[in-house]
Amino acid sequence: MRLLIKDAAVVTLDPTRPLVNPGYVSISDGRIAAVESQLPTGEWDEVIGAQGLILMPGLVNAHTHVAMTLLRGYADDMELMPWLQTKIWPIESRIGDEDVYWGSLLGIAEMLLGGVTTFCDMYYAFDRTAQAVAESGIRGVLSGVLLGFLPSAQEDLEAAVRFVRQWHGAAGGRVQAMLGPHAPYTCPAPLLRQVIAAARELGVGIHIHVAETEQEVSASEQSTGLSPVLALERLGLFELQPVLAAHCVHLQPEEMDILARRRVGIAHNPGSNMKLASGVAPLPELLARGARVGLGTDGAASNNNLDVLEEVRLAALIHKSHRADPTVIPAEQALYLGTRGGALALGLEDVGQVTPGFRADLVLVDAHQPHLVPPHSLVSHLVYSARAGDVRTVLVDGRVVVRDRRLLTMDLEQVMAEASRRAAEIIAGERPPRR
Amino acid sequence: MRLLIKDAAVVTLDPTRPLVNPGYVSISDGRIAAVESQLPTGEWDEVIGAQGLILMPGLVNAHTHVAMTLLRGYADDMELMPWLQTKIWPIESRIGDEDVYWGSLLGIAEMLLGGVTTFCDMYYAFDRTAQAVAESGIRGVLSGVLLGFLPSAQEDLEAAVRFVRQWHGAAGGRVQAMLGPHAPYTCPAPLLRQVIAAARELGVGIHIHVAETEQEVSASEQSTGLSPVLALERLGLFELQPVLAAHCVHLQPEEMDILARRRVGIAHNPGSNMKLASGVAPLPELLARGARVGLGTDGAASNNNLDVLEEVRLAALIHKSHRADPTVIPAEQALYLGTRGGALALGLEDVGQVTPGFRADLVLVDAHQPHLVPPHSLVSHLVYSARAGDVRTVLVDGRVVVRDRRLLTMDLEQVMAEASRRAAEIIAGERPPRR
Repeated sequence: MRLLIKDAAVVTLDPTRPLVNPGYVSISDGRIAAVESQLPTGEWDEVIGAQGLILMPGLVNAHTHVAMTLLRGYADDMELMPWLQTKIWPIESRIGDEDVYWGSLLGIAEMLLGGVTTFCDMYYAFDRTAQAVAESGIRGVLSGVLLGFLPSAQEDLEAAVRFVRQWHGAAGGRVQAMLGPHAPYTCPAPLLRQVIAAARELGVGIHIHVAETEQEVSASEQSTGLSPVLALERLGLFELQPVLAAHCVHLQPEEMDILARRRVGIAHNPGSNMKLASGVAPLPELLARGARVGLGTDGAASNNNLDVLEEVRLAALIHKSHRADPTVIPAEQALYLGTRGGALALGLEDVGQVTPGFRADLVLVDAHQPHLVPPHSLVSHLVYSARAGDVRTVLVDGRVVVRDRRLLTMDLEQVMAEASRRAAEIIAGERPPRR
Repeated sequence: MRLLIKDAAVVTLDPTRPLVNPGYVSISDGRIAAVESQLPTGEWDEVIGAQGLILMPGLVNAHTHVAMTLLRGYADDMELMPWLQTKIWPIESRIGDEDVYWGSLLGIAEMLLGGVTTFCDMYYAFDRTAQAVAESGIRGVLSGVLLGFLPSAQEDLEAAVRFVRQWHGAAGGRVQAMLGPHAPYTCPAPLLRQVIAAARELGVGIHIHVAETEQEVSASEQSTGLSPVLALERLGLFELQPVLAAHCVHLQPEEMDILARRRVGIAHNPGSNMKLASGVAPLPELLARGARVGLGTDGAASNNNLDVLEEVRLAALIHKSHRADPTVIPAEQALYLGTRGGALALGLEDVGQVTPGFRADLVLVDAHQPHLVPPHSLVSHLVYSARAGDVRTVLVDGRVVVRDRRLLTMDLEQVMAEASRRAAEIIAGERPPRR
């Protein structure tokens, strides 16, 4: 399959030539074959005209719990622990495997339509999410969630290992698997050691929450005598590649040094951190150390959408406000975090740039709209003014999955109806507890 | 003209019945005639089917400089004073009257398509902005900008008075005029006294920047011995109605008391304040005092869009983060600020609710999209997940100005082309300085 996208303004995220305008991007066998400034000669199975459109790498959602779309808007504006204990956890215990499948499809539909071509997930019933990834055409880095305090912790780990064996590299490589110990404070050291050994044996990475809240840091210090990053470093967890550490809000300088040196992927979640008032992550300090940072939405119960373009904007805004410095996290850096930065955080070395040899995960944004005119700076417009709804066409591995704002890979009406029906049943208590 | 909107989920902003779902809203002579929960009998010139749509009051942009759309993305991520002195002011001096007209149309197009039905503006060449308001069908509360340090200050005031005489109440009442002394630190007391006297005589309000930055507060204290609000209170400015005070970021408790007691309209601009790192306004304290607060985008050079729905979200998020309290500015309050709160801040008592007798400034939002499903809470979805691009149909004074995402009142292609052409000429230095 050979494909040409022509006449686009290409925001490449490639530092050697950031903008090619007009640009001609040819795709062959799912990868970018060439990025040229003149119409190339050749034969194509399909040519996509992109006059007036910005072509950019697909956005990467480096941390979410995709099936939590089922709980979008169910409970907001609450303190974290009452929110979890009285609202989210009781309801989550009623979410069944098929609910996860439909909730995953709903979230994937939202992400693809909003230009997100890769997401990194941690949730229950992960094989159902993997099925949704396989069917929908998105790229997913998936892990089940392991909680040390559950009686089923050992069985859950065994199931997670089976999941990795079954799904890692499936769907033409679009499904990648990780192990997902929830957090240092919910997984005691013996379990974490098991997980690390299993990940090493399987050759996969680990997805874990780290230092999201101050309480979490205190809990880690009480149970291990160490802050979360130091506790994980001592266990050798960061010797694995890739590790995706979600949040990393409350860090000491020494911990930042470790995260950078170990090339740990960090998912910064500005929207969720703001909504839950978790704190403001030390993003400028992490970037100054060369840490691998991407952006995540977190789950739809704490965001409430899966809109990575919005996270790009929030990343550009919140640190300016928090530091009283309008020069931190400039537009180019924010866009990098939402694309190439996220891909590197997930260990996807060939994702996140419009560069020959990279995977053809690409997004066309309709720049011919009043809020994106005049065209002084396309990067500035993408970061400070564009919206997910401006996304027009999306490719993953060179396959068109969204065309002219229509999702080609699933029956969107059915997905919205099924997810709504199931969400209503879950809220109404019409599901038995899962455990 | 009698119009019926049927089968909508009506988020009324009317505290006596916040949600009518399904709702039937009848409109007569530009005002809301009835809001019912069953299909009314009667004859209609037009019936708008709104199944799957949320009907809400139009959004109110309580502070902007609309023609600055011409500078969108021209300069970002800079310190405030170098940004103003080396980028914005030199360029602005080259913006001519016809440029303001086209820049205003561009901004108005963006606002109407994004569900903004009223805006409050301060800029140069205000009669050209008024012309754009008259033609486009939006509601505008307009003022010219008066700067005391200009040699032309007296002429400018005279021109502003002529503008009020010509335009206040024009276009069927859609154009309202104010006087626009820029700020206490740029307008010395003698000029402000003149402005206050003129506003009193004309029977119009005043639009002024107040306490946007710490430097501004220091400047006021140095020149007058008083902080900005106290200086304006001593001059009697707050005896006028309405007064729109933009920003109000750096306030002492005593100043908040005055603003609340005098029923001063306050435009909170979270996006601009974050991007320029101006500080975080004491919104919870202002609201606790019963102050009249609305939301503004500020100009497109410091935002960079005119998206009030985004300001609603930022208002809900930034204070949670800043206070480390996830319960402040809940969704309902944020939505109020972007609609009814803004209308009251501008002295528009009959705008901003879906309530019989109110002006029919209404927005239909397409809720039948993945990011707005499942429908646990429509208000939560509007605040935390919806985007300006979800707006489908917009009415101002009962007239349909946007239908199914198409702007009916101007030639959008022409507006984007003219604005882009003129912006490029301005940047290239192909305009003589205005003064």
